[in-house]
Amino acid sequence: MAKAQSSYAVILAFSLLVNLLVYTDGERELSWSKRAAQEAEQVAAISCSGHGRAYLDGLVLYGIKPVCECNPCYGGPDCSMFLTDCAANAGSGDPYFLEPFWMQRAAKSAILVAGWHRMGYSFPDGSYISTQLEASIHKVHAVVGNAVTKGKYIIFGAGSTQVLNAAVHALALENNSSSPATVVASIPYYRLYKTQTEFFRSVDYQFEGDATSLQNISDAGHVIEFVTSPNNPDGKLNKAVLQGPNSSAIYDRVYYWPHFTAIPTAANDDLMIFSLSKLTGHAGTRFGWAVVKNESVYQRMTEYMSESSSGISRDAQLRALKLLNVVLETGGREIFEFGYDTMKNRWEKLTNTLSVSNRFSLQKIEPQYCTYFQKIREPSPAYAWVKCEREEDKDCYKILEEAKVNGRGGSVYAAEERYVRLSLIRSQDDFDILIQRLTQLVKE
Amino acid sequence: MAKAQSSYAVILAFSLLVNLLVYTDGERELSWSKRAAQEAEQVAAISCSGHGRAYLDGLVLYGIKPVCECNPCYGGPDCSMFLTDCAANAGSGDPYFLEPFWMQRAAKSAILVAGWHRMGYSFPDGSYISTQLEASIHKVHAVVGNAVTKGKYIIFGAGSTQVLNAAVHALALENNSSSPATVVASIPYYRLYKTQTEFFRSVDYQFEGDATSLQNISDAGHVIEFVTSPNNPDGKLNKAVLQGPNSSAIYDRVYYWPHFTAIPTAANDDLMIFSLSKLTGHAGTRFGWAVVKNESVYQRMTEYMSESSSGISRDAQLRALKLLNVVLETGGREIFEFGYDTMKNRWEKLTNTLSVSNRFSLQKIEPQYCTYFQKIREPSPAYAWVKCEREEDKDCYKILEEAKVNGRGGSVYAAEERYVRLSLIRSQDDFDILIQRLTQLVKE
Repeated sequence: MAKAQSSYAVILAFSLLVNLLVYTDGERELSWSKRAAQEAEQVAAISCSGHGRAYLDGLVLYGIKPVCECNPCYGGPDCSMFLTDCAANAGSGDPYFLEPFWMQRAAKSAILVAGWHRMGYSFPDGSYISTQLEASIHKVHAVVGNAVTKGKYIIFGAGSTQVLNAAVHALALENNSSSPATVVASIPYYRLYKTQTEFFRSVDYQFEGDATSLQNISDAGHVIEFVTSPNNPDGKLNKAVLQGPNSSAIYDRVYYWPHFTAIPTAANDDLMIFSLSKLTGHAGTRFGWAVVKNESVYQRMTEYMSESSSGISRDAQLRALKLLNVVLETGGREIFEFGYDTMKNRWEKLTNTLSVSNRFSLQKIEPQYCTYFQKIREPSPAYAWVKCEREEDKDCYKILEEAKVNGRGGSVYAAEERYVRLSLIRSQDDFDILIQRLTQLVKE
Repeated sequence: MAKAQSSYAVILAFSLLVNLLVYTDGERELSWSKRAAQEAEQVAAISCSGHGRAYLDGLVLYGIKPVCECNPCYGGPDCSMFLTDCAANAGSGDPYFLEPFWMQRAAKSAILVAGWHRMGYSFPDGSYISTQLEASIHKVHAVVGNAVTKGKYIIFGAGSTQVLNAAVHALALENNSSSPATVVASIPYYRLYKTQTEFFRSVDYQFEGDATSLQNISDAGHVIEFVTSPNNPDGKLNKAVLQGPNSSAIYDRVYYWPHFTAIPTAANDDLMIFSLSKLTGHAGTRFGWAVVKNESVYQRMTEYMSESSSGISRDAQLRALKLLNVVLETGGREIFEFGYDTMKNRWEKLTNTLSVSNRFSLQKIEPQYCTYFQKIREPSPAYAWVKCEREEDKDCYKILEEAKVNGRGGSVYAAEERYVRLSLIRSQDDFDILIQRLTQLVKE
């Protein structure tokens, strides 16, 4: 009996041993990568109370571990302290609304970068562009159906920012006239169009402001029109105001994804710009791209990237590739459902909150059929374009600021001060505080 | 007896089990990071015969694994095939000579990037710049003693490339005169100075070529001089040719590291530019920085980075931080000894090879005391600046090309065609083939 028990114990022990060996097999293979993996998990395990996160390259205090970087209005070593008097941050378009999506897909979306990863300047074809990433970009557009990319060229840049100026540069040089090209946009427009175009002080182009002012001028010379569709700040599916042989449009389509808008049709513009920031939420990676029809424009934009920065960080390209491939795994279904649900719920909450009074109005967006979701879908814009309706509320930014809501004033978009943009794509914390502050304001 | 044996077996089994649990403890903690770590190790384990390497984002054939990317003159699925008729690649400055250094330090230099790493636009201080990385840059300069950075500003850019134009832009705006600033460099100079300055077609600056042509002109207006020290292509420790209140210098010091030159003293110029590419060998990461004394120049350069690309990829910054911290672990000792030994050996081999005939000469570099190594050190330049000495060998590039050596012709550096630059910082394979071809050539 004792012998039988002992034998049983031996068998059990060996069986556990074998199980453990098999179970840990994948891990036991790890050698040089283990340390980096452990470092990353240790940092990820730092508790920031759900109101912040620690990063691998965060500030290290007392040589121990990186500190929590808290969401606005939260503080303390673990971000658990709510700063009660704090103003809602509805300013910049940091796309933290997608952060939980990636946290939930930690295993799929992580990359381990070896110390010797792509040290050289170029890819095997001599270019600064990963052909794998280029292929994934074509696939994403094909799967989503938001842009026709077949037979077109792809150019990479540091976010949409760098790509935008590359496009202005290239189109300006397509101009045959001796005078500089005129660059315009329809009000309200994204401020960078103006600041960037003016900043470079090129002899080849000049920013002139409002596109509609040129509509009835027949000899405006060569005109480059920025068209943002959906528009930042108001979410409208804009089209070029100017037509004709002397006009070229740069279609900034960074918001043309199912998170933010119905996709009524695949865009087929000659020059379209997209960014990782508004697709996967990775603004910090600085990765954007243009889809270009004309070969000469493509060549000039490629030359721009080369002269400006010798191409885009290969680390940023590696990251973009991984993230896009996670998006593609489910044909975009997971990320776009997550993004659309989040943004639609936020819009509903915001409209409900403001509907209590007549003091503020929002842009009107109609439900529309989306070819991606194959159904009518509700509005889910990235930004609220708020109008202060009372005659005396001329400075809407100030009204909201006094109510502890920090948006961006209308003048930032060359519009009236009666308007304010509120960013809805930030963290859930930021959005929740925004709703709290607005609820209070409309009650008064 | 049987019972005793059984008990022994039980004890042994449990002891093994406990050992295994303890041994694998560090690994068993890994959860979400395991997959990325495994992927990276699998790719790193692909054999490319020491003549190439596979990358995580390499071309995948038949859906199996990334292909080997072979060094020039090697081919086949595992890079084991030497292409006998192939020309030596001594063209671009891809700093692969440091690749073995990082392969030998795989565990230290790897990073695991979580899917949600730094999705937002800015760091906690609102900037686009990692203060951790900034601190590491200050430390590297302090440890190496190659530049005085205390009390100076640091600006990040996409390699030296983007920083160079930011510097031209900023200095040009410091100009009080109404005419554009004149941009010059001393021949032979790095081609980008010319192409980039001309490319942006700014109203604020114009490239005028040779610095020495302005030396005796008293009213040249505001002049911006590019000074490369050590110089690309000839390795000379250049100083500004132009002096005076109307002249500003941009000191391109990307080669001012103990790999390539003695460090006679800590440089203390008003505007100095460095890059990760020539320090750690990571050209592909696109990370460079400027050390700037003047606050207004710093502000303008920072604005440039903002308007041009909304700052530098946070992924590139994370990578740079890890790599610099590995450098710092040994006070730079390991990497600079590796770099210096490699480059010194290559220079010796090259000089020995060419000394067989009088047909070719090299730039003269004297042994010099290095404050970093605290000894006299031998020459170890990044590039050979070869002169074809025979009267009839006017086109030196062609002479070398016919001997299957591809360098870069003198005209690329605004110099005579009698010169050719040979890159010595590429892979060991490239260097070995270069020596083979040159040995053959001088024998003839």
